[in-house]
Amino acid sequence: MNLSVLKNCRFQKKIFFIDINDGTFIEDLQIICKDNDFICLKKIKHELNIGASVYVEGFLMPLEDVSSKYFELVASCIVVLGSSSIKYPIQPKPHSKAFLRQLPHLRLRTKLFGAVFRLRNTLTCAIHNFFQHKGFINIHTPIITTNDGEGAGSLFQVTSFNLQDLSNQKNLDFKKDFFGKPVFLAVTGQLEAEAFATALNKVYTFSPTFRAEKSNTSRHISEFWMIEAEMAFCDLSYNIVLVQQMLQYVIKFCLQKNKFDLDFFEKNIEPGLISRLNYVVNLKEFPQITYKEAMNILNKSSYDFEQKPIYGEDLSTEHEKYLTEVIFKKPIFVTNWPKNIKAFYMRNNSDNETVAAMDLLVPKVGELVGGSQREERFEVLQDKMKEMQINKIDLDWYLDLRRFGSCIHSGFGLGFERMLLYLTGLDNIRDVIAFPRSYYNIS
Amino acid sequence: MNLSVLKNCRFQKKIFFIDINDGTFIEDLQIICKDNDFICLKKIKHELNIGASVYVEGFLMPLEDVSSKYFELVASCIVVLGSSSIKYPIQPKPHSKAFLRQLPHLRLRTKLFGAVFRLRNTLTCAIHNFFQHKGFINIHTPIITTNDGEGAGSLFQVTSFNLQDLSNQKNLDFKKDFFGKPVFLAVTGQLEAEAFATALNKVYTFSPTFRAEKSNTSRHISEFWMIEAEMAFCDLSYNIVLVQQMLQYVIKFCLQKNKFDLDFFEKNIEPGLISRLNYVVNLKEFPQITYKEAMNILNKSSYDFEQKPIYGEDLSTEHEKYLTEVIFKKPIFVTNWPKNIKAFYMRNNSDNETVAAMDLLVPKVGELVGGSQREERFEVLQDKMKEMQINKIDLDWYLDLRRFGSCIHSGFGLGFERMLLYLTGLDNIRDVIAFPRSYYNIS
Repeated sequence: MNLSVLKNCRFQKKIFFIDINDGTFIEDLQIICKDNDFICLKKIKHELNIGASVYVEGFLMPLEDVSSKYFELVASCIVVLGSSSIKYPIQPKPHSKAFLRQLPHLRLRTKLFGAVFRLRNTLTCAIHNFFQHKGFINIHTPIITTNDGEGAGSLFQVTSFNLQDLSNQKNLDFKKDFFGKPVFLAVTGQLEAEAFATALNKVYTFSPTFRAEKSNTSRHISEFWMIEAEMAFCDLSYNIVLVQQMLQYVIKFCLQKNKFDLDFFEKNIEPGLISRLNYVVNLKEFPQITYKEAMNILNKSSYDFEQKPIYGEDLSTEHEKYLTEVIFKKPIFVTNWPKNIKAFYMRNNSDNETVAAMDLLVPKVGELVGGSQREERFEVLQDKMKEMQINKIDLDWYLDLRRFGSCIHSGFGLGFERMLLYLTGLDNIRDVIAFPRSYYNIS
Repeated sequence: MNLSVLKNCRFQKKIFFIDINDGTFIEDLQIICKDNDFICLKKIKHELNIGASVYVEGFLMPLEDVSSKYFELVASCIVVLGSSSIKYPIQPKPHSKAFLRQLPHLRLRTKLFGAVFRLRNTLTCAIHNFFQHKGFINIHTPIITTNDGEGAGSLFQVTSFNLQDLSNQKNLDFKKDFFGKPVFLAVTGQLEAEAFATALNKVYTFSPTFRAEKSNTSRHISEFWMIEAEMAFCDLSYNIVLVQQMLQYVIKFCLQKNKFDLDFFEKNIEPGLISRLNYVVNLKEFPQITYKEAMNILNKSSYDFEQKPIYGEDLSTEHEKYLTEVIFKKPIFVTNWPKNIKAFYMRNNSDNETVAAMDLLVPKVGELVGGSQREERFEVLQDKMKEMQINKIDLDWYLDLRRFGSCIHSGFGLGFERMLLYLTGLDNIRDVIAFPRSYYNIS
């Protein structure tokens, strides 16, 4: 018995070979169909177009030539539950990923995207399991917020105003909007996660996050999912240990649970994928270098960078690639970043120039995790907020966390879709999220 | 050794009794502190205000009188990591829940909210476990959307326009907005979940959801979390079976994992809570009545409803309460609702008056789950969309799911915070989500 979506049909005069798949496994099941009391090939032929859903009864027959298919099914009865038309846009021939992106609701039925979304599910489980085993509490931080968490701009505004009406008015009065003030989609839940960590010790989020960045790169989208962890009584070095443990745990988990899907990626997307992942799982320690050391390596290099590495500025994609793919050939932590290019809440180091921040850079994907020890000293934090022009009134509650029982604490954020790029070998973030949203792109 | 937040202090001349808690367990740990080589009581006294974080070394001593506390700790050393001030707003005395709602970042440290958010974490795990064991795939449907899923209005609009600028312009051109068209925060991920179900068979979401409803009741908020399940090849009756299985599974899971927290709710919030939950776990079958039968019961009743029950209209809170608390005294399914008050995608019954919908109503909370079999017949769906004035162009992709291999399928949505009300006995939804958002209310 099988209730499934039809993937391919080969008609011969007296026998049909039909491949079906219900999305639970990468390989199709082949159905052998001959005329009998319950099957009239002639009658069903025109309904058996790709995409049709069928009900089949029959006998599972083991195959002698076992490659990855172990069985075929000799049908004793077949019913077309929902027919399909010959216009079904995804035919059994190669389609470009760009073409499939225009059909987000149907590409889910292809082998590639079946594998992607099964793996996405497994990665979700792996992340929850990791944190639950470590005694973390899953929390939900707000999506609609008055904070501009990172002080970074690029926010979507949320409103119940009728925008059309608004353009006919002279003055805007936010008191008339739903919340009585301007509100935005959260770019991070970290500040609230810190409030949770001072109450429940170790916490993590698994939430959608939003950036209104008008860049259309293969690594950026406007709506993505992020995992943010926050730990009380934890400094930068244990933060780093935890990130490595998490990364190795979730990769191992996916290798074990989704072997067939990863085999598919290995064969069709990135040769060598599985040994690359196994190599990372077995690494004893990811190298750690300071931002200064990274700059020294880049400046000493004879490589002709498009953008010259400049001390005090962020690393660009080519710099990250050079460090992880040419020099170290593995994931690395870059620590102690210049305070001017990092967020106000990161803890000042004693040099007063750098902060106790860390980025995990990995080959192919670049920045996968960003984290830091948080500034727990009331006066230092207050001064930094003033210096960086952070609105103190809106964040007075955040200062409360330092007024009343402050403690050393740290945390990090993992980009969920970037982790999926790392696991699949795919190179466009739009192919690991079902309905990608980016500048001028929503379908 | 303990790194913890101070909850209470009782100072005597030569001995301090300090209660600390790190948020992982409902009960505080009592620290006995006397002067010694490493402790100078006089010196630390002024720092030991409620909320301070401390490091303690000492000996765990079993208590003879075992109530719920099993140990106390005799300190050999204590260090105040972060002092607190006597102005800490939550003192060890009764505070109203309304007062604590004004301090969302600090109320997390109280016994009540510690218990709430530990239970919230366990419920999250229970839901994932249930669906994973059943072979469901966790999916992420989009938050920013062009669809008005339920055709229900009350949407938040999302924009990257500067609203202030907008009010000085004459004409609004959405082509200049971030996505080039009007977009909203999703009220449901169901339509996309249907696309997933036709590809991966059984799927579920766990996502934030938004309603811009200007009502400030104790059961409604503007940002809440919802679990939506969608199953291919599944009709209404198995949909109902699955909802009951889920409900019983997650309640049992929470009873087992968070006994101490539930004992706290039983003692402080709702006497009889645990036997109420156990009763539901052990029910063989939740009663099922049709909407018509529900109406008959209500109309025959001598109870003086504020709002008279009228056939063809929705049930109000008092009607739900009467059915679940007075008549059945347990959760009930109400099925076959008038099609005019339900969404366009619900499957028409053969009477052409009602749809194959079901609501799960429970005592205290009212509607906890809503679901239906979906209209899988292309022509019927098309007609319904026309009749209910649903924009066909925007939803042509949704019709594709019926054009290409349609099949019987069903699904439901569970309100996560309402489930928490049901599990805790709390009566205000603002007390089971950390940072509640509602009309004119964001802090």
